[in-house]
Amino acid sequence: MSHIVCLGGGTGTFTVLSGLKKHDLKLSAVVSIADNGGSTGILRDELGVLPPGDIRQCLVALSGEDQLMRKLFMYRFHEGMLSGHNFGNIFLSALEKVTGDPLSAIDAAHKILDVNGQIIPVSAVAANLFAELSDGVVLEGEKVVDKHDSDHSPIARCFLSPAVQANPRALDAIREADVLILGPGDLFTSLIPVLLVEGVKEAIAERKGQTILVLNLVTRSGQVSSPLASNFLETINQYLEPGSITDVIMNIRKPHPDMIQDYSNAGDMFIEDDLNGTSMPVIHRVDCLSDKQPENVVGDKLKRSLIRHDSEKLAQAIINACKAQNRTEQ
Amino acid sequence: MSHIVCLGGGTGTFTVLSGLKKHDLKLSAVVSIADNGGSTGILRDELGVLPPGDIRQCLVALSGEDQLMRKLFMYRFHEGMLSGHNFGNIFLSALEKVTGDPLSAIDAAHKILDVNGQIIPVSAVAANLFAELSDGVVLEGEKVVDKHDSDHSPIARCFLSPAVQANPRALDAIREADVLILGPGDLFTSLIPVLLVEGVKEAIAERKGQTILVLNLVTRSGQVSSPLASNFLETINQYLEPGSITDVIMNIRKPHPDMIQDYSNAGDMFIEDDLNGTSMPVIHRVDCLSDKQPENVVGDKLKRSLIRHDSEKLAQAIINACKAQNRTEQ
Repeated sequence: MSHIVCLGGGTGTFTVLSGLKKHDLKLSAVVSIADNGGSTGILRDELGVLPPGDIRQCLVALSGEDQLMRKLFMYRFHEGMLSGHNFGNIFLSALEKVTGDPLSAIDAAHKILDVNGQIIPVSAVAANLFAELSDGVVLEGEKVVDKHDSDHSPIARCFLSPAVQANPRALDAIREADVLILGPGDLFTSLIPVLLVEGVKEAIAERKGQTILVLNLVTRSGQVSSPLASNFLETINQYLEPGSITDVIMNIRKPHPDMIQDYSNAGDMFIEDDLNGTSMPVIHRVDCLSDKQPENVVGDKLKRSLIRHDSEKLAQAIINACKAQNRTEQ
Repeated sequence: MSHIVCLGGGTGTFTVLSGLKKHDLKLSAVVSIADNGGSTGILRDELGVLPPGDIRQCLVALSGEDQLMRKLFMYRFHEGMLSGHNFGNIFLSALEKVTGDPLSAIDAAHKILDVNGQIIPVSAVAANLFAELSDGVVLEGEKVVDKHDSDHSPIARCFLSPAVQANPRALDAIREADVLILGPGDLFTSLIPVLLVEGVKEAIAERKGQTILVLNLVTRSGQVSSPLASNFLETINQYLEPGSITDVIMNIRKPHPDMIQDYSNAGDMFIEDDLNGTSMPVIHRVDCLSDKQPENVVGDKLKRSLIRHDSEKLAQAIINACKAQNRTEQ
């Protein structure tokens, strides 16, 4: 049974894990600790806990518990002083208070949710993401960086403060994984905050197996300067040692033109394939676009993406990319 | 295996259940739905849920789950906007939102906490306690009634508004119990709000088995007009059909005089035994005073009572009272 490790957090990692869990695989996720927005940001600030949101989503993705416990962990309050808070975030925060440390809390949550896999925070200490723009302005916190758009100067570099050491279990998982998956997900609120933790980039460079980047479907306004796939790849490569990415999975089926237009009106563009001619990384062109209506997750906001990856198609694409590699090696 | 049903809520019922669970008994609790104070009051008001506090305490008392889950359900936040909220209350509230009704939520909580017994809200609908004083002033809500003291006119009568029908499962449990236990607990915030629910008084009167009142150890200022046990009994009997109580368990070991003095300074008095000469109910005079230091429940306030029942002694006293009855019948 292969061990696949996903890096990130957020909806993209949720989608990958949800698809892969239906296959006979050992799964882990190494998850961001830099979120400071919404319910997670408030709990982190007020209670001093590790940001729970990304961890909670990954726990739910791999939970074997019945539908009720999964629904409960995704439930968001709509009324009163709890309005906007996600129950799973409050649960993880209370667990951290009772157990006394975030790693014990997450271990306990694995048992409570009967998680089939390992969800590993990339660091046991929270950090904040900073983005320095090309005009010298510095944006502080994922919440602010997330709002950066093309009206501002482009992002020149990102860093975490405080600089945090990686959780040794996260580095072990990255090194030992048969396959490492980066993305999909918002570059600056999911993937890059993980890559910036001390030791992560080096651990990825040391790997022997495949490191697969799942390209996003659309750009986010202000995150990359063009909708070309090469530009997306270059942006991520700034935060990796050269040659770290061995494979790229890229969707090639276009959504309905109306949908592309809707996104375009909001400044977000469908990513265009300009990766012809590159021999490394290996490009896997597939249809992994979702045709489904968004799931009706009670009280949560997974509805927001209309142009989305299909979790099952994406899982199959990952498995096919692994098989292709194995055939080449034989 | 005898079926013992406890009526009430709050710390007193927690103590009785915690003691009885160590014996080979079928246990149920019929629990108040009138609390409107603290964390429970806020959740009830803002989310429209059944008041969770009393239900949560009883669930924890009979939980077979490991210590962590019990600690988690008793954990109270101390910081930020969640400060003062009990996590178990938030858990039950979220469960009610996700399942759509309070009875399904409580059923689900039984499974999550591996509860060995049945916790049954006396009604599926929340109600408010009102207390009419002898000078005609009406106090609204348990929170306000709880603060009533001897500076005010005495309480002439209590009622619930809206008048709520009993949960049929609560009435079944009361009727079918081999032994019904009333108290201990604050009269106006635990026991009387249960007795006021429509159908409860009649179901108790219909019973064939013992109905045992566990007398409190101390009076609460403003709740009864004297520290005599007979006065306490008379106050409860106002909310019952005549002859409903078959047995009374009364502690006869006095606490240290300094402790009695401390309580007396706050207007609370050690209850005095003046029940000589009564043949019905049967009076069981026992030592059921706790010598233990209060349990260190993380973040909760079970510490407040220094003059307390010992859960094991009280459970034994209840079992002895049942045996005494069985001997009489044989």
